[in-house]
Amino acid sequence: MTNVSLVDLKVIEDARGKMIPLEYPKQLNFPLNRIYYIYDVDNNQTRGCHSHNKLDQLLIAVKGEVNILVKTPFEEKIVKLDSPSKGLYIGPMIWREMFDFSEDCVLLVLASELYDEKDYIRDYREYEQKALEYFRNEETNND
Amino acid sequence: MTNVSLVDLKVIEDARGKMIPLEYPKQLNFPLNRIYYIYDVDNNQTRGCHSHNKLDQLLIAVKGEVNILVKTPFEEKIVKLDSPSKGLYIGPMIWREMFDFSEDCVLLVLASELYDEKDYIRDYREYEQKALEYFRNEETNND
Repeated sequence: MTNVSLVDLKVIEDARGKMIPLEYPKQLNFPLNRIYYIYDVDNNQTRGCHSHNKLDQLLIAVKGEVNILVKTPFEEKIVKLDSPSKGLYIGPMIWREMFDFSEDCVLLVLASELYDEKDYIRDYREYEQKALEYFRNEETNND
Repeated sequence: MTNVSLVDLKVIEDARGKMIPLEYPKQLNFPLNRIYYIYDVDNNQTRGCHSHNKLDQLLIAVKGEVNILVKTPFEEKIVKLDSPSKGLYIGPMIWREMFDFSEDCVLLVLASELYDEKDYIRDYREYEQKALEYFRNEETNND
């Protein structure tokens, strides 16, 4: 799926436990400018429900599990994040919804840019219109 | 304690759960260049046992709990990290040891620089010598 990929994060493991380091450009394909983590989410809640014009993000369930719906006007899929070593890269113009958080889930998100409300698209119809244009241009660029 | 402080991280909370965002300079006092997280650590293991010449770090137990010993040639204390909203800032020239990890602990560490083995001081005697000099200069600078 365009602008979405599952990333197998390298675990550094020894008798003292496990560690996963993330920095750009070694393990990340975008510079790290912001992180946030989400926790204490009731199982019946859905988060996300927006897209970004140009943000790169990596989502990791560092504890517990959660389902992520990623969607464009052309395709959609659900990815289960259930391991600290499984990252979901989400690039620009992808609608995303997070749901089915386990009680213990901590979802860590790494982002390429500082917070900017103007980069969010929160209305699905507006997203669809912009995304049609975005992916049409992408296609042209790849011809 | 010089170069060590407990930081109360702001939680954004609503019916959909809790979120803590971290970016520089809004919530962080250093630029974000690297993160790592540590997990699956046996309770009898100790990690850390080193200092850095000039790194800034913020440690957060995003799940579970862990004790952190922070130490200079002049003073030491143990800080319990047991909440996703409690950050421990550790600046340059602080010896640190992490121990008593709970089984479910995920310790997230944010760092101001990319990984650089040359910035580590892993021998305590070498650390002590360098730290004595560092803090003597700090004192002079603050006079």
